[in-house]
Amino acid sequence: MPRQITAYSNPAVKAARELRDKKHRRAQGRFLAEGLRILTEAREGGRLPKQVFFAADSAAHPLVIALVDAVEAAGGDAIETTPDILSKLSGKDNPGAVVGVFAEFERALADLDRTSAGIWLVAERLRDPGNLGTILRTGDAVGAGGLILIDDCVDPFSVEAVRASMGALFTVPIVRAPWADFIAWLRNGPGQLVALSLDTDLDYQQPAYAAPTFLLTGNEAQGLPPAYAAACDVRVKMPMLGKADSLNAAVATAVMAYEVLNQQRRR
Amino acid sequence: MPRQITAYSNPAVKAARELRDKKHRRAQGRFLAEGLRILTEAREGGRLPKQVFFAADSAAHPLVIALVDAVEAAGGDAIETTPDILSKLSGKDNPGAVVGVFAEFERALADLDRTSAGIWLVAERLRDPGNLGTILRTGDAVGAGGLILIDDCVDPFSVEAVRASMGALFTVPIVRAPWADFIAWLRNGPGQLVALSLDTDLDYQQPAYAAPTFLLTGNEAQGLPPAYAAACDVRVKMPMLGKADSLNAAVATAVMAYEVLNQQRRR
Repeated sequence: MPRQITAYSNPAVKAARELRDKKHRRAQGRFLAEGLRILTEAREGGRLPKQVFFAADSAAHPLVIALVDAVEAAGGDAIETTPDILSKLSGKDNPGAVVGVFAEFERALADLDRTSAGIWLVAERLRDPGNLGTILRTGDAVGAGGLILIDDCVDPFSVEAVRASMGALFTVPIVRAPWADFIAWLRNGPGQLVALSLDTDLDYQQPAYAAPTFLLTGNEAQGLPPAYAAACDVRVKMPMLGKADSLNAAVATAVMAYEVLNQQRRR
Repeated sequence: MPRQITAYSNPAVKAARELRDKKHRRAQGRFLAEGLRILTEAREGGRLPKQVFFAADSAAHPLVIALVDAVEAAGGDAIETTPDILSKLSGKDNPGAVVGVFAEFERALADLDRTSAGIWLVAERLRDPGNLGTILRTGDAVGAGGLILIDDCVDPFSVEAVRASMGALFTVPIVRAPWADFIAWLRNGPGQLVALSLDTDLDYQQPAYAAPTFLLTGNEAQGLPPAYAAACDVRVKMPMLGKADSLNAAVATAVMAYEVLNQQRRR
């Protein structure tokens, strides 16, 4: 049976609320995800929250019932609460019907089977959580094998990244690795590393992107360090007809990823 | 000569600070843009702020001097101020060197020459200012003729949209119009209207996108109203290999726009 919590001072509420901060996520090894659609996708993908908070007025929704039942069957904690507390957990004036507290999960490079997908996404020092979430969402769409986060990227388990991923956090494997470790792993098997660059005349539609292709996206403001760009097998540019010399990082990743997908699906 | 303002209570500072709110933007007919790179691009494109606030410690930067000189030559107001006031104007802890107050500008459908570009972007009830700015940035990159905002979209002059546009607000023409007015204008000349849809089997790479092609993007959560989708000449889908059925709106717009550009540049 779900328990009821209506006091903001309740320790479970306080512990969940703290997960909006990175240091508490690290300390607890947990993160927040919100919204019935996303938590349902997570459930269907085999990821259940340790705790689920739900509003009393949505307790009769079939998907809320399914979620609560699954959480309790797995030994988790289902908590009926107020819209106000849900709002404080989600940080939104109009929170979704549910907020879940999940255990953080992550894989190591050694866990990845590079032959399992034609496209892999790699991001270096990505700073914006919305970009990270959007790249995960694109990764889901193009069937990417995973997202590899290089060096000091924004936390993929931040509330903003989880929200922007629209559930793809639960479907796209995530690995964090230093550059040296990534390159050592990459060169120990098949696969080409491809980056956008301003210092090339090679159009992004010219190369053949055989599987597996690893698409490397650099920091939003600075792009890739020159040494990283030099380590790529292929450097390409996209046509830029306007005044600017760059696209949003998540947009550039998506345009590249669809070019790779389009080539690979024609074969 | 620039004047100096160091008091947050100064009326000019207060009036500029108010422009972070939509109702004050409407009342004053002005908006904020920040950052030396963006204001320099605006200046080079012929758009000067009515007021420019700059930090004393950046007064010797050649681009700040060029900006201040241009603003004063045009009869505008140059104000040397403190990092603290710049921070309050920009809403960022580490503000750029300059913040400008610009007069809002906008065009009407009748001002657009649809034969001047092969790609036009159209967004309907777009809600996220980051998406709007990112779409403007993509529009700049693909050489779009403009961005047409249909019905109740987020304000393109909001601080977040201006920031995400990375200066493209000043280079890509913007029109706001109700759907009925847009369709009447569209059907009074050449051009096909293309939308992504879940209710089609037509792959987005199949149609020929002749110039001018108008790419219609719907609301982030709800997509296009059925009647709007039905009014399009072409409805296409993108391959989606994962669990989700949609991409981020700015990402989907960009992938479509580059397909159109790729087709048109091959001719």
